[in-house]
Amino acid sequence: MNTSVLLISCPDQPGIVAAVATWVAGVGGNIVHAEQHTDRHDQVFFQRVEFTHADTVTIETLRAGFAALAANWNMEFSLNALPWRPRTAILCSRHLHCVADLLSRTTYGDLGLDVAAVVSNHEDAQKLATSFGHPFFHVPVTDAPGGRAEQEAMLATVLDSLDVDLVILARYMLVLPPAIVTAWSGRMINIHHSFLPAFVGANPYRQAHDRGVKVIGATAHYVSEILDEGPIIAQDVERVSHRDDVADLTRIGRDLETTVLARAVRAHVEHRVLTWNNRTVVFG
Amino acid sequence: MNTSVLLISCPDQPGIVAAVATWVAGVGGNIVHAEQHTDRHDQVFFQRVEFTHADTVTIETLRAGFAALAANWNMEFSLNALPWRPRTAILCSRHLHCVADLLSRTTYGDLGLDVAAVVSNHEDAQKLATSFGHPFFHVPVTDAPGGRAEQEAMLATVLDSLDVDLVILARYMLVLPPAIVTAWSGRMINIHHSFLPAFVGANPYRQAHDRGVKVIGATAHYVSEILDEGPIIAQDVERVSHRDDVADLTRIGRDLETTVLARAVRAHVEHRVLTWNNRTVVFG
Amino acid sequence: MNTSVLLISCPDQPGIVAAVATWVAGVGGNIVHAEQHTDRHDQVFFQRVEFTHADTVTIETLRAGFAALAANWNMEFSLNALPWRPRTAILCSRHLHCVADLLSRTTYGDLGLDVAAVVSNHEDAQKLATSFGHPFFHVPVTDAPGGRAEQEAMLATVLDSLDVDLVILARYMLVLPPAIVTAWSGRMINIHHSFLPAFVGANPYRQAHDRGVKVIGATAHYVSEILDEGPIIAQDVERVSHRDDVADLTRIGRDLETTVLARAVRAHVEHRVLTWNNRTVVFG
Amino acid sequence: MNTSVLLISCPDQPGIVAAVATWVAGVGGNIVHAEQHTDRHDQVFFQRVEFTHADTVTIETLRAGFAALAANWNMEFSLNALPWRPRTAILCSRHLHCVADLLSRTTYGDLGLDVAAVVSNHEDAQKLATSFGHPFFHVPVTDAPGGRAEQEAMLATVLDSLDVDLVILARYMLVLPPAIVTAWSGRMINIHHSFLPAFVGANPYRQAHDRGVKVIGATAHYVSEILDEGPIIAQDVERVSHRDDVADLTRIGRDLETTVLARAVRAHVEHRVLTWNNRTVVFG
Repeated sequence: MNTSVLLISCPDQPGIVAAVATWVAGVGGNIVHAEQHTDRHDQVFFQRVEFTHADTVTIETLRAGFAALAANWNMEFSLNALPWRPRTAILCSRHLHCVADLLSRTTYGDLGLDVAAVVSNHEDAQKLATSFGHPFFHVPVTDAPGGRAEQEAMLATVLDSLDVDLVILARYMLVLPPAIVTAWSGRMINIHHSFLPAFVGANPYRQAHDRGVKVIGATAHYVSEILDEGPIIAQDVERVSHRDDVADLTRIGRDLETTVLARAVRAHVEHRVLTWNNRTVVFG
Repeated sequence: MNTSVLLISCPDQPGIVAAVATWVAGVGGNIVHAEQHTDRHDQVFFQRVEFTHADTVTIETLRAGFAALAANWNMEFSLNALPWRPRTAILCSRHLHCVADLLSRTTYGDLGLDVAAVVSNHEDAQKLATSFGHPFFHVPVTDAPGGRAEQEAMLATVLDSLDVDLVILARYMLVLPPAIVTAWSGRMINIHHSFLPAFVGANPYRQAHDRGVKVIGATAHYVSEILDEGPIIAQDVERVSHRDDVADLTRIGRDLETTVLARAVRAHVEHRVLTWNNRTVVFG
Repeated sequence: MNTSVLLISCPDQPGIVAAVATWVAGVGGNIVHAEQHTDRHDQVFFQRVEFTHADTVTIETLRAGFAALAANWNMEFSLNALPWRPRTAILCSRHLHCVADLLSRTTYGDLGLDVAAVVSNHEDAQKLATSFGHPFFHVPVTDAPGGRAEQEAMLATVLDSLDVDLVILARYMLVLPPAIVTAWSGRMINIHHSFLPAFVGANPYRQAHDRGVKVIGATAHYVSEILDEGPIIAQDVERVSHRDDVADLTRIGRDLETTVLARAVRAHVEHRVLTWNNRTVVFG
Repeated sequence: MNTSVLLISCPDQPGIVAAVATWVAGVGGNIVHAEQHTDRHDQVFFQRVEFTHADTVTIETLRAGFAALAANWNMEFSLNALPWRPRTAILCSRHLHCVADLLSRTTYGDLGLDVAAVVSNHEDAQKLATSFGHPFFHVPVTDAPGGRAEQEAMLATVLDSLDVDLVILARYMLVLPPAIVTAWSGRMINIHHSFLPAFVGANPYRQAHDRGVKVIGATAHYVSEILDEGPIIAQDVERVSHRDDVADLTRIGRDLETTVLARAVRAHVEHRVLTWNNRTVVFG
């Protein structure tokens, strides 16, 4: 038996669930997980259906078959085989905890990533990437005039040539140019080291310390045109106190960043995320 | 429009979701929330379907109509109108935080309980119950020979005469006799002041302190024949440290107990809980 | 034996701890809790020392005795007897969960408040206050020209006449005039229904929903001149998901608001809070 | 300036804090962190004092100097330089997430371990250890008669020859013989995949699933003679639901295990832990 996963969004209307379930039964499928959500305010319906079916039924056949139903109900949908092992580029700068964590998880089987390369504007991650057997690309910003633009162009080339399905910004500290953001829309996940929307921009742990907050957080989100404003996939927080200076917050925050980023990547890889109105539906 | 809620359990088999959804559509209903769960190990299917329908369709009509479908699929089901405002007896002893919290929530509209009475083996809660306008029954254990049996008999009488749908043990500190437990099976919720199965029985905060744990918890569960072994509905925990003595744990635990008990009661009142194999499915 | 508590802040310098401990020993005191904190960046030292001493030594004697030491070390200090049972005014509007919770806690002994009155711009809390045996003052904003200013004047008069030590804004939804804020500086605690600094101002649950966050929070803080910018005493958060609409967030948030506000009030009443640079040191 | 850390336990008595603070001042030290705790029930006093001092004052001089004071007050104490970089052996079996996490943290500077070797009864971790540049010892249990005893003897030899300060059981799944447990008493930290004392022994996630708990946890503790009964250093938990089968609990638990183990190791390495009465005092 194979497993496939259907993600649907459409205007809410009576009978959708029955129609979808009937279709699945019609292709000999058995629903193993199904979750749905209706946004009442905007009357939009979302559903994730994971089902098993004979391995003689190809994913292309399923997609073609469902397309007719989707047209009738004005649905947007995606239909994919599970497990998905996306070809992935991991970008980082000098903080290595997120990239180390992602590579570790891939190694011991916690995350099913096919890591195409680690890419960084610094050389710090080179040894780590090599230890885990992955290519490393150093794409530095030089001091030459136009150095930043040159770096961005080179980065775009590297990402294109790697032909990846997913880009993870694992504490990559440079703002990306709009062209790259647009090219990877919905396929680029960033970890920000605050509970957004608090403390956007640079040095969030410094900002958190200066404001005297009693919790710090981390936020994983799809990257969009406006910095730190993309759809949030996962967030978590940890309590802190007056005893924690900026260095303590930074250290405590590392565990938040790694676990929140991994949670978001897993949700994406398992086709659990729908975005809509700059928000996400993340099916559990 | 009226709202009704359907709770189903049956052997897992292809086509159930389609059959239920088709039935809802057939009575002119629109599904507003649906969640399902399949226990893979035992091949059991569970579903909660909340749907709106014309107020001309009575709950009795719906039940009669669904019964035929249920028979075909070997389903156990319940079908009820929302909101449900169960007639409720709250039992307590000397600790008043849970009963105070439940009465407060009822007063400001957080919980939809129809409080029939507060019942206690001590008089401490009398003033509180009266302040909130509820009857109070004092059912003490006397020192006379057979005092405990007499108390249990009187308690059974009081509960019967109150004709309640739900009994909440809000820190009621006496073990109930089997006859009462059986009579209210699936309709009696207890709060235990530990993260069960750790620290069953008496003085769990003392036990927690002596073991030196770094988290304490509270557990709300349906009462069953074996003490502290019933199906768990809700649990939560809070971090503690060496600084917290038994009195501190007791104080910190109060907030856990009130919120966990309220969460469990709400789930029950909204028909979100199915029990099976001494475990619960709690739909979100 | 009596218990007293000393709160100190001063420039950091070697020997402070020894000097304070020696002074306590000198008055026959025994330290039962001591916690200190040094802000390295600004070189400021903070300490809380709780000590027992003979009941023949009055708090006035202790204060006079410590004053000389404090002058030598350039300390600001407060020295108070425990337990403190501050005369308290609770202000609220239409949401009653926080005021109900505070009154419940006072009743069953969780919080040691001497509730002078409940004050509100609406009548909703009247019955609740009366049930718990507390005076209620209705200070409404009328539609008459100048109605708001008149309300503010009346409120100031009520607070003054109540002669309270502490004002708790338990979901009081009107912004207070500077004169009142200044008069109760450091003695007025507000609960804001977001994890500040995210979602300042009105309708934070609506804002949180629209941003699509995966955690919501509550913040208790001293009220200062700038709305929602005062020193944070306590914060906590709860995970939420796409399933939670604004009404759900509001309901989930109630438990956060009550527990966070109670935690802040307790810290204040137990003389655990020092404020400095718009931040707090909250000793555990 | 150097930094040293003093850990003290002794019978509670007035004047201790002053005596210690005076001694620190006397050696030209400046206290940068100090935390104390008194167990009221047993009248035992605990303190951790971190202080800076001239680098011309050696740790040996400090120890010799403090010994006289300690004798007067009947203190047990340790006095060590910070940072400490303990020579460490990491033991594991087939689950690699904890060892991978510890090695990652060491690499990017989160934990200051001097990893002497990774040791395992299986070969799975060999590649990982080698990737990070650490020796690997394979100490398997053979099927030969006496294979287990032979393995235990070889393990003892390996640990002795490595001359380590600390042994971390990072999901090492064999019960250790008493001789090894005794030899490394107070210097061997284990991670157990439940919130002890719930679910001792084998397959705690299976046990947790069968009991239907709504939270799972992990516990890091010093290893003692009785399995899973040693002093608890750190614990944390995560909420789960009926949707999570044993495989899900195992996956969710991995993040708990890695972060809780790392937290405990850090506390040990920073000399923050005192054990007493099979409990710990962990200074923050």
